[in-house]
Amino acid sequence: MPFDYIKDPAEIYRKSFEIIASEVELDRLPQPMAHVATRIIHACGMVDVMKDFAFTPGAAMSGIEALKRGAPIYCDVEMVRSGIIRRNLPANVEVVCTLNDPRLGDVEEQNTRSANAVDLWDNLQGSVCVIGNAPTALYRLLERMEDGAGVPALVIAMPVGFVGAAESKDELTRNKLGCHVISVLGRRGGSAMASAAVNALTILAGMAE
Amino acid sequence: MPFDYIKDPAEIYRKSFEIIASEVELDRLPQPMAHVATRIIHACGMVDVMKDFAFTPGAAMSGIEALKRGAPIYCDVEMVRSGIIRRNLPANVEVVCTLNDPRLGDVEEQNTRSANAVDLWDNLQGSVCVIGNAPTALYRLLERMEDGAGVPALVIAMPVGFVGAAESKDELTRNKLGCHVISVLGRRGGSAMASAAVNALTILAGMAE
Repeated sequence: MPFDYIKDPAEIYRKSFEIIASEVELDRLPQPMAHVATRIIHACGMVDVMKDFAFTPGAAMSGIEALKRGAPIYCDVEMVRSGIIRRNLPANVEVVCTLNDPRLGDVEEQNTRSANAVDLWDNLQGSVCVIGNAPTALYRLLERMEDGAGVPALVIAMPVGFVGAAESKDELTRNKLGCHVISVLGRRGGSAMASAAVNALTILAGMAE
Repeated sequence: MPFDYIKDPAEIYRKSFEIIASEVELDRLPQPMAHVATRIIHACGMVDVMKDFAFTPGAAMSGIEALKRGAPIYCDVEMVRSGIIRRNLPANVEVVCTLNDPRLGDVEEQNTRSANAVDLWDNLQGSVCVIGNAPTALYRLLERMEDGAGVPALVIAMPVGFVGAAESKDELTRNKLGCHVISVLGRRGGSAMASAAVNALTILAGMAE
């Protein structure tokens, strides 16, 4: 028995976005954020993630300008890095994940490996930081910002899970640390949503093919 | 202001699983599947994903035996491959993603790149196939199975999204193609849940450290 399914990638995208637009009141968002929200919803298959969507005014533009400037993108896990479409980015943009950096060693000291990896993000000032997995990585980023290590142009804050995910995102939005934020609050998040947000920015910037 | 958060990885896991067990009736599942479900819920932060959880009786054991035998793990996207914890696997198990295989060329012909990539999965018989992103990859896998290309030991079927995700998973569970299945039905799914299911099997098998 042949299976009947849509095989044209452009048509799959078009239909997906049409369904999302029909189920979500996207016009409640400013235009750039409506596009980011659409891509996040597309990545997770859940329209109700909209209710947890949070951002600072101007966050999309701040992220776009950083990418155009060639700022690095720091990712907490390899899954986030894998999800970022490299061909959409300017060639000089580094997509960095330090979780498997040999400098970290094999032993987790004082904090999780995900958090220790954030200590290796050398150029925080003006960067784009993407947390798609570990709440402890987001907490460590907040600590470093408080310690004066630099203010990212944008923090895409989407750690996921039951311990610290909601709390770390609340801390980020509660504390006025001067950075722009795009977040999915609560327990939900993940590397697919986080990398989708980056990809949305590259498309908005006209960087994509 | 110092941030107060749990930094001990073992304690974060313990507490996460405690919360999941308190919110989900895991004992409605046979033991191996309760562990797989816990890991999937842990990966997505959603306890209600349980209602979409589906599997064939014996699926976990079939997957474990395949991994112990050294069967390949085929992944539809790099994000799934990144999420699979390699150090938990026997050294002879290959984790394969053909999405960026040069044999595919640059042009999408007749079907999506994700679907064409499935045509390069050379040893389907007895393998573990993990679909964490593309419905078209799952459809293509079903077509290949119908064409006699081999029966996987386990299909972890978790494509995500609005076009074809629910439908392709319904086809897999409706058609009796002889393979074991672990799935999250409906629009939800994704590479984090899919790789979490693989990691759960390696832990159940005693392969993990």
